[in-house]
Amino acid sequence: MTRTSILSAETEAAVDTTRVAVSTVIFTLRRAPRSEAPSIALPLVRRTRDPHEGQWALPGGWLDVAEGLDAAASRTLGETTGLAPSYLEQLYAFGAVDRSPTRVVSIVYWALIRPDEVPDESVENVRWFDAVDLPLLAFDHNEIVDYALWRLRNKVGYSRIAHGLLADEFTLAELREVYESVLGRRLDPANFRRQVENSGTLIPTDRFRTGSHRPARLYRYNQDVELADRGPLGIRH
Amino acid sequence: MTRTSILSAETEAAVDTTRVAVSTVIFTLRRAPRSEAPSIALPLVRRTRDPHEGQWALPGGWLDVAEGLDAAASRTLGETTGLAPSYLEQLYAFGAVDRSPTRVVSIVYWALIRPDEVPDESVENVRWFDAVDLPLLAFDHNEIVDYALWRLRNKVGYSRIAHGLLADEFTLAELREVYESVLGRRLDPANFRRQVENSGTLIPTDRFRTGSHRPARLYRYNQDVELADRGPLGIRH
Repeated sequence: MTRTSILSAETEAAVDTTRVAVSTVIFTLRRAPRSEAPSIALPLVRRTRDPHEGQWALPGGWLDVAEGLDAAASRTLGETTGLAPSYLEQLYAFGAVDRSPTRVVSIVYWALIRPDEVPDESVENVRWFDAVDLPLLAFDHNEIVDYALWRLRNKVGYSRIAHGLLADEFTLAELREVYESVLGRRLDPANFRRQVENSGTLIPTDRFRTGSHRPARLYRYNQDVELADRGPLGIRH
Repeated sequence: MTRTSILSAETEAAVDTTRVAVSTVIFTLRRAPRSEAPSIALPLVRRTRDPHEGQWALPGGWLDVAEGLDAAASRTLGETTGLAPSYLEQLYAFGAVDRSPTRVVSIVYWALIRPDEVPDESVENVRWFDAVDLPLLAFDHNEIVDYALWRLRNKVGYSRIAHGLLADEFTLAELREVYESVLGRRLDPANFRRQVENSGTLIPTDRFRTGSHRPARLYRYNQDVELADRGPLGIRH
């Protein structure tokens, strides 16, 4: 069989049966009642039809033939949850043959949002879950969340990604809490302070957080550096 | 219009017209005749039919309905170029509406191979090109190569990825040449040696490279550390 005939046969099969979907993992920090430390949370949508009717799934939907991947992610996230983060980053394409009863390749996006960006009123069939304590989700969505958590943990090591979970100004204790939530372990406060101060990525302000503890200086991150550098891709995809 | 009816309409459109393809960027180091420094090179395939007949394109093809994304990348790379790297990593999904005359979402993979892994005999319609001196390629493939180069440059800063271009044992000068080729600039040999030795990622051997220069110690990298950590995804996708 020549290569041309192989490719033609595949074209027919692909046209007939493979569909493209988008899904989005939205991470935020959530402090449970009576809990000392915040935890990573994400919104899930209860499926209202088969397959997996009644199970929780990542927000998402089908790619429209006339929209780009980024646009599809934003649209389906908005339609299902009402959320509209300023920036969604592509995470990974999941395409195992058996991940759905029909053949579906899902392009997964992710974003970090600050707790104050989470809307107060609840949306029908949407609930926020602790990322490390999920029920059995529809399709391969547990695996997708695990992968997103792994990327998040890796990424705090070499990027400013933790700032996506923080307000514009924050104390070093608040920044450390973000790192602890992402990494799932406690960090030594003195070591953390020294490492962050030596990194040169933070700018101290003249303002302090006051309250039940002693006043703590507020920091902001360097606005000249993009939170998530997309490289040469620009905004077109 | 309810959300259900929106999703149904999109399902029809996606089934009718969006196809999934895979393409692969294979980077290696190539030393041009009479050239002091090696450069990053990749194989391209001349298209034998429309669209873009006669233009060069990344190796690839259609996703088969019965194969996973990784398998499709390996298969189409082998069919077009004869190359079979031990590991292909997913790079990015490209899905701009106008990137092809028909609607195609391409899942792009990439791999690094050592110069000695490049076959000597040439394959029909395949040629190796300097990555930073490409002709106008089919589709958005120039943009894809630029993105892959950007990721490669970023990744040498925080991973062992440069070792994918080297033999098992190498001199520090050879390692520096890899970094210089990827980064596109000269590095100070003394600084480079100090940084690499301080990183603790290399193991010095008792062997030396001899030749026209003074003998240089051979190093190897720590085999306990995976070259490309895929995290929790395993090998299933």
